[in-house]
Amino acid sequence: MKRIDTSAWPCNIARSASVLGDHWNILLIRQGCLGIRRYEDFQRTLGIGRNMLSMRLNGLVDQGIFERVEYQTRPARSEYRLTDKGRDAYTVLAAMDAWGRRWLAGPEGTPVLLHHRTCGHDMHAVVVCSECSGPLEVRQVSARAARTPRRGPRG
Amino acid sequence: MKRIDTSAWPCNIARSASVLGDHWNILLIRQGCLGIRRYEDFQRTLGIGRNMLSMRLNGLVDQGIFERVEYQTRPARSEYRLTDKGRDAYTVLAAMDAWGRRWLAGPEGTPVLLHHRTCGHDMHAVVVCSECSGPLEVRQVSARAARTPRRGPRG
Repeated sequence: MKRIDTSAWPCNIARSASVLGDHWNILLIRQGCLGIRRYEDFQRTLGIGRNMLSMRLNGLVDQGIFERVEYQTRPARSEYRLTDKGRDAYTVLAAMDAWGRRWLAGPEGTPVLLHHRTCGHDMHAVVVCSECSGPLEVRQVSARAARTPRRGPRG
Repeated sequence: MKRIDTSAWPCNIARSASVLGDHWNILLIRQGCLGIRRYEDFQRTLGIGRNMLSMRLNGLVDQGIFERVEYQTRPARSEYRLTDKGRDAYTVLAAMDAWGRRWLAGPEGTPVLLHHRTCGHDMHAVVVCSECSGPLEVRQVSARAARTPRRGPRG
């Protein structure tokens, strides 16, 4: 399947999609959020082929989502820990969980419940406005290019 | 590239990833959110090949994200409109925008500004808890299987 590189497009969604617009990457970050760190455990819990797993983990390390940390020296063994950037991607996964509940759960309801230790309640994610805290609805949001000062020859 | 079908996994994130874990699908929903409806306009604005575009649009229609609506009869011409389910996926894209701002924007800052007409401010999305409205941090969230009553032979 052909992929274009959207990582430098002038759009945060397109840039994020270059990392998160891949279902293996999402599932690997999900496993990381659940505490999985070792290659064999990613492999076993996702049933992902080893070539694909190595390719994806290396890519996520390159992108600063996971860091490779040696936990044993003889023989050398490494594990994959989510970085701050990787942990913060949980916000996107939580929004996906909430959308999945609303639209993909079927009559038997959500297969997974989330518990927020901070407040002690079962909950789901809500995506709100940073300014008014109201839930975001696409028809109420408009996008425009930021005017950033240009530098260099074109400045 | 091999894909596994995660649409029936007992996990809302994995199910959502079967639709949203694809960068073309994300970009097509993004274009839909920006008001794009016609095949030629999706093609032109994304620079996507026609085979890929047709495959992805058909898939998104099958999944109930877009609906195909005839806007002209002679010759027959259709356009693709986001459904309620598709428009609601904007919550995930808004979370991706916010994550992209924080982690992928570089020193020149966000390339895109979002304006919330409801409150009249420029803003970004925040992913919060439905119960306490506090921002979600993965270390404060735990997941468990929902106990749903089984039906049929195993019930």
